[in-house]
Amino acid sequence: MAIKIIVTGGTFDKEYNELTGELFFKDTHLHEMLTKGRSKLELEISTLMMIDSLDMTEQDRKKIADACTSAKEDKIIITHGTDTMTVTALYLQKHCPNKTIVLTGAMIPYKFGSSDGLFNLGSALAFTQVLPTGVYIAMNGKYFEADKVRKNTDIGEFEAI
Amino acid sequence: MAIKIIVTGGTFDKEYNELTGELFFKDTHLHEMLTKGRSKLELEISTLMMIDSLDMTEQDRKKIADACTSAKEDKIIITHGTDTMTVTALYLQKHCPNKTIVLTGAMIPYKFGSSDGLFNLGSALAFTQVLPTGVYIAMNGKYFEADKVRKNTDIGEFEAI
Amino acid sequence: MAIKIIVTGGTFDKEYNELTGELFFKDTHLHEMLTKGRSKLELEISTLMMIDSLDMTEQDRKKIADACTSAKEDKIIITHGTDTMTVTALYLQKHCPNKTIVLTGAMIPYKFGSSDGLFNLGSALAFTQVLPTGVYIAMNGKYFEADKVRKNTDIGEFEAI
Amino acid sequence: MAIKIIVTGGTFDKEYNELTGELFFKDTHLHEMLTKGRSKLELEISTLMMIDSLDMTEQDRKKIADACTSAKEDKIIITHGTDTMTVTALYLQKHCPNKTIVLTGAMIPYKFGSSDGLFNLGSALAFTQVLPTGVYIAMNGKYFEADKVRKNTDIGEFEAI
Repeated sequence: MAIKIIVTGGTFDKEYNELTGELFFKDTHLHEMLTKGRSKLELEISTLMMIDSLDMTEQDRKKIADACTSAKEDKIIITHGTDTMTVTALYLQKHCPNKTIVLTGAMIPYKFGSSDGLFNLGSALAFTQVLPTGVYIAMNGKYFEADKVRKNTDIGEFEAI
Repeated sequence: MAIKIIVTGGTFDKEYNELTGELFFKDTHLHEMLTKGRSKLELEISTLMMIDSLDMTEQDRKKIADACTSAKEDKIIITHGTDTMTVTALYLQKHCPNKTIVLTGAMIPYKFGSSDGLFNLGSALAFTQVLPTGVYIAMNGKYFEADKVRKNTDIGEFEAI
Repeated sequence: MAIKIIVTGGTFDKEYNELTGELFFKDTHLHEMLTKGRSKLELEISTLMMIDSLDMTEQDRKKIADACTSAKEDKIIITHGTDTMTVTALYLQKHCPNKTIVLTGAMIPYKFGSSDGLFNLGSALAFTQVLPTGVYIAMNGKYFEADKVRKNTDIGEFEAI
Repeated sequence: MAIKIIVTGGTFDKEYNELTGELFFKDTHLHEMLTKGRSKLELEISTLMMIDSLDMTEQDRKKIADACTSAKEDKIIITHGTDTMTVTALYLQKHCPNKTIVLTGAMIPYKFGSSDGLFNLGSALAFTQVLPTGVYIAMNGKYFEADKVRKNTDIGEFEAI
């Protein structure tokens, strides 16, 4: 039972540019994280884009949905910025109905010592394996169905609606 | 849906004693890990023992089974040393049949930078929420039923049998 | 032989704001770093300002010089952003001639796993104890006199001129 | 002005063996630490032995002294276990009188998140550059002459005598 992981960027993968003092995207840290987690799952990883989810367009979401549809795997994880994660989840719920898709991300870049990224990745991989067909968000240790969740931006947490 | 976490020790919680140069147990790092993972799950955590799983006796396993049985929660995570994790899983499968129990641990102490602990905790919490009644081991990103897994000590990985 | 540490901000102390996704200043990490380094030096730490060194004004530099002059200690460390560290060093060389003053900072925030901050702090504390009166920059494992150093912004390193 | 670094093992370089659950020596972490510290010093690094300093024999100390004497560099750092660091320092003070030699180490392995190793390395490199001929121990942010220091094993700190 292989799982596909589609990388789209987000806080998860942000790094610190020591020449400019700004956060930026280089490569995904996913392989490094999976090594640390000693994952022995059969995974198919592809980086589709590397963007801040605030910059994600309808066109980008279509690209993600196409990648989900054309994937041979039925179980898919999408790493994604948290700001518009719920928007993409709803889009996929509409356009990609026959797979188990779990979106996850991080509140703090993985390269920061205090990141929630590794925890979220572990939970997303687990949820993907066991949840039935549908689109979900895995954050804060929980899972939410795509149309029953919002990000509470005041406290930086996902909550059921 | 509250989850109970029973701490028994294991590599997970080992620390370095800088006076003696030896690894030892002090307190569990579970709360610190859950904070890092920004977990918002309703959890009930109790430290039952703090031992190396090679030192775990039949009496200790009975104590764990009793804690599972008497817990008001139906979903339980047990943090446990990896060396005899399968032994305890089998014991619980026999003595505690009506709950979803997930055992997890770490190959490297959480306090080491390279620990798989946070990843495993994330996956164990996810599996516990979704898997049906039964006893499972969550390691290497996977879950295994208690009677269908062994630890391959040559490579330090859990594998299906 | 007490050492005074004057905190002015800089990359050293930047944190990630998980609500806005931006880097910002909260409190200095100096105490945490000194605890990690198991420092047993007699230190007097004060936070004078918490700013990016690109925003530092002549007025701010005067404030730093006054703090150096009025300090009862003869040995002083200043944590400072790297972008204008050489400007402040020259200013202090002119206005604060009778003490051993060492400026240091970091190319990567301390809270990032890959930070040079702890290494630089260790070297700055050592240089301060042993170097004669003068103003110095301690970066990249080296020390430079205030008027004989520039930051090579292409590669992010300090070099002798 | 090149500095020689002689690696002898000690807590500094201990790693966790995830198959046996024991601490052991593999390779030195010195290169990784110097990269993190963005050191641009001209260094000559050689691993002479990889042992716990409690296992260090008179023969081993002779080997270290010979390496110091035969080194073309006048400034030398020795990474060393803390338990018998003062013994080796005294030995070198007697047998290697014409160089600036600084011994340092760590109370916690570098691979542990909470290690003092990077701080100590930064301070040792600084002290070596500036201190006059002699043998010193650099720990806890301080430097001590070889014959004026002891390790207080009750609290795990070096102190002047």
